[in-house]
Amino acid sequence: MGATYRALCEHGYADLTMQDIADESDKSKASLHYHYDTKEELLLAFLDHLYDAFTDDVGETDGDDAVDRLVTFVDELLCPAEQTDESRSESGRDGTSDQGTGSDGPNDGADEFEEFQTALLEIKAQGPYVEAYREQLERVDAFVRGRVREIVADGIDEGTIHSDVDPDDTAAFVATLVDGVNTRRVALGETDGSVRDTFLAYVRENLVAPDADVAVDLVGDTGCETGGDTADAAGVDGDDGRATAGGDD
Amino acid sequence: MGATYRALCEHGYADLTMQDIADESDKSKASLHYHYDTKEELLLAFLDHLYDAFTDDVGETDGDDAVDRLVTFVDELLCPAEQTDESRSESGRDGTSDQGTGSDGPNDGADEFEEFQTALLEIKAQGPYVEAYREQLERVDAFVRGRVREIVADGIDEGTIHSDVDPDDTAAFVATLVDGVNTRRVALGETDGSVRDTFLAYVRENLVAPDADVAVDLVGDTGCETGGDTADAAGVDGDDGRATAGGDD
Repeated sequence: MGATYRALCEHGYADLTMQDIADESDKSKASLHYHYDTKEELLLAFLDHLYDAFTDDVGETDGDDAVDRLVTFVDELLCPAEQTDESRSESGRDGTSDQGTGSDGPNDGADEFEEFQTALLEIKAQGPYVEAYREQLERVDAFVRGRVREIVADGIDEGTIHSDVDPDDTAAFVATLVDGVNTRRVALGETDGSVRDTFLAYVRENLVAPDADVAVDLVGDTGCETGGDTADAAGVDGDDGRATAGGDD
Repeated sequence: MGATYRALCEHGYADLTMQDIADESDKSKASLHYHYDTKEELLLAFLDHLYDAFTDDVGETDGDDAVDRLVTFVDELLCPAEQTDESRSESGRDGTSDQGTGSDGPNDGADEFEEFQTALLEIKAQGPYVEAYREQLERVDAFVRGRVREIVADGIDEGTIHSDVDPDDTAAFVATLVDGVNTRRVALGETDGSVRDTFLAYVRENLVAPDADVAVDLVGDTGCETGGDTADAAGVDGDDGRATAGGDD
């Protein structure tokens, strides 16, 4: 799975071959083929693994109240670098940034993260052709929307979120926004820009119950722009090749 | 340009060859190469043409006030089918739906539109590799953001939009939302879902000035889901091969 991640980063999806993946691993192409007949099958296993790693990584979404939890969750989706502070300090800042990529020069983490997002966008563009990819993408999306829906419903119960807010609609809106940020990161090379601020304004004006005593900008105010080192931003930990979707669906 | 559009719909971006494009036109591959050295050059000319057609098609964005104009503009971006009612009635509902696509069977407009959006998403995924593509994508995006910014600024001037709304942030938010809808249409096969409703709620709560006498749901309330015939949704008019981005950037 780590080799698949690295090969995707280096070659993108369209040009990827089983040989490229073998080259990033200690296995032969023949032994990869023993487990996976086609590149498609191997990538399906990879997407499956990505789902597990992503949902593990996101965990429970703690917070003082539902509004705090919602903003925290969206931050985890929009700013993957923030999300992996722990794994970064565990593995060291520089330990995983360019190992095994096989690139010509050192490949820093920010580049690697963009490369991975690019390969994921290529896989999204396969949605209409490869039903099994679409099913995996839908699974990640269902997780994201389910979490938002759950948090909003909790907020309505606890009185921090307006009772006329629709949890499903809010979930679809958040998921769409996150997809937009991820697409723009690849297509236009843009980070989240000012989207986080506008999202916070939306939360404040549209979601927070009128008499609720919650602050909307509780969480770190850095957005994604000051990302700094994003070596682990995609949740890849070199040794076990653990990779997450980094909030992408 | 019409042949390029049809070839993109049929073959997608990654597998597209100059021969595929020649096959959709009355030109030989050699004569295409006389004008365009590579597929990349031809696609750049196509993206350039798309920009012109899209900006022509969107036109001025009329409306009773800035809020009405903003909702109308976003509807044009989110629901391309709605946008081409005029060209549809001019060319007739069935005249342009499957001509010249070279597909095995009749290819209805909705399929063709999804195919084109898919090819565009593939081109977006080339952003990090082909700087000239990214520049064209940025140009469309700058147009979209510029229009939103202008409308919001007009609204602040005329008093329908709250004076503390930031036109730039609003523009980035809208553009991100539209990109998200377009990505999800391809990756997940989803139409705009409930995003339009939530966007209207955002406009109502976040943008409209407190004492302004404007209704937010002025424009048709169908969203994209009842799209019906979308043969001309991508703005392609068979005879002159005129194509628009259909609100995609």
